[in-house]
Amino acid sequence: MKLNKDTDILIIGLGVIGGGYAKALTKQGFHIRTITEREEDIEYALAQGMIESGRTTVDEDYVRAADLIIFALYPHTFVEWLERYQHLFKSGALITDVTGVKSTLVAQIQEMLRPDVEFIAAHPMAGRERSGVLFSDDGVFRGANYIVTPTEKNSPEAIGTCRELGWLLGFSSVCELTPAEHDRMIAFLSQLTHCIAITLMTANTDEGLARYTGDSFRDLTRIAKINDEMWSELFLLNRDALLEQMDAFMAEFQKLRTFIADGKREEMREMMRESTERRSLFDKK
Amino acid sequence: MKLNKDTDILIIGLGVIGGGYAKALTKQGFHIRTITEREEDIEYALAQGMIESGRTTVDEDYVRAADLIIFALYPHTFVEWLERYQHLFKSGALITDVTGVKSTLVAQIQEMLRPDVEFIAAHPMAGRERSGVLFSDDGVFRGANYIVTPTEKNSPEAIGTCRELGWLLGFSSVCELTPAEHDRMIAFLSQLTHCIAITLMTANTDEGLARYTGDSFRDLTRIAKINDEMWSELFLLNRDALLEQMDAFMAEFQKLRTFIADGKREEMREMMRESTERRSLFDKK
Repeated sequence: MKLNKDTDILIIGLGVIGGGYAKALTKQGFHIRTITEREEDIEYALAQGMIESGRTTVDEDYVRAADLIIFALYPHTFVEWLERYQHLFKSGALITDVTGVKSTLVAQIQEMLRPDVEFIAAHPMAGRERSGVLFSDDGVFRGANYIVTPTEKNSPEAIGTCRELGWLLGFSSVCELTPAEHDRMIAFLSQLTHCIAITLMTANTDEGLARYTGDSFRDLTRIAKINDEMWSELFLLNRDALLEQMDAFMAEFQKLRTFIADGKREEMREMMRESTERRSLFDKK
Repeated sequence: MKLNKDTDILIIGLGVIGGGYAKALTKQGFHIRTITEREEDIEYALAQGMIESGRTTVDEDYVRAADLIIFALYPHTFVEWLERYQHLFKSGALITDVTGVKSTLVAQIQEMLRPDVEFIAAHPMAGRERSGVLFSDDGVFRGANYIVTPTEKNSPEAIGTCRELGWLLGFSSVCELTPAEHDRMIAFLSQLTHCIAITLMTANTDEGLARYTGDSFRDLTRIAKINDEMWSELFLLNRDALLEQMDAFMAEFQKLRTFIADGKREEMREMMRESTERRSLFDKK
């Protein structure tokens, strides 16, 4: 499918990410319809010129007409939606998503989906601390990665369309990983860091600490303000990969603890030099 | 001692912090002399108008004349300097420091110091990722905390002078903690966070990860670029307090790990809600 202004695009779920997609695609000249829970979100999006129209119930005409459907829902809601409404899809429709974990979900959906409809999974790596369409912003896609996670069930054409979508949304990089590679990467870079931030906030409940906080501590715990409904679901969907990264982190942390306890200064310094050197790889280009 | 423009102030060690002090105090109209290792640092500081004069060797006249001496050296260098040169101090001189840990050092110095000279310890909580006078900047003191850590050996007058110095340097907050309280706080807010950042950088050496990094991971590891000489010394000087915080962090992290492994979603969500709520206390005012 070649995306053009006549492509009928439907976004299901107008939250912070769905809203960002709507903004970006409308700016590109597409006509965006949306189905979402709350009337006020549709009103807001209409007033902002982000969408062409919206419904708070599953409008059969919307679904039957759609060439490309983008699901921006929590994982379990996404699966439930498909179970209930996939009979409405136009034959040959392409569906994609924005979910933060892939292996279990992609396998489950490709298994249950009608054979005449294709699901190509993608993860826009542009998080926001706040949720809801009022905080949506297509500017966060600039400088960020859009990751397509195809399986052997995907066609080259669908992969191509999904990559094109990433560029149209304004991402600075579009790449492909297998669902398993994606989940290992996300377990380390995103889920482990959220686990650390949460732990830092709950491990020490001294009331007076906030008074002495500097920017380093604030930086490490910015993501400790967390959407518990979404993240608990994502952690459990990626349990094995996350536990593996947590264990690797703990083993290395324990190694540093032993160096400190035993006064092994040279070993500590070597670890710090390695850290300093490796961190340079992660500087913003 | 009431600080005024005739107070003879000597800064020993013109690095990133000593340099920031020199800049701030010169702007306030003080005449700043300095003793530091490298001629080029003195030349730089003179060219920038940060100091009145400087020496690369211990100039006896400088030391004998000084009313207030600020030590901005690594802890062990500070102690060695005192052993060697404290006989030069003017009787009644006040000395202070910028060291990041307090309990062991303050006790050691107050023990060894001449009885007619007073040491009042302070910690300017304004770190920089880079070291050296070229990166010094008195602007980092704005919005930051200056912590005075008196003991029962300190006079109210010296405590008052040291607090006054904190305000003159431009800190937004000046407060007092005992050395032990200070070290517990710093073990958690600063040393533990550096341990975490180092561990994140060395626990997973996958070459490809940098490509997918987002801002959260960069925020958590900004301080992973670390001066190994200074921080290994600070970790060991604060060993007991740091190990205590590391153990508390690991116990809490292990708790979260168990929730995830056992699929205890409600317990995870409760921890995330606690984290979210507590993080609000740490927002920049």
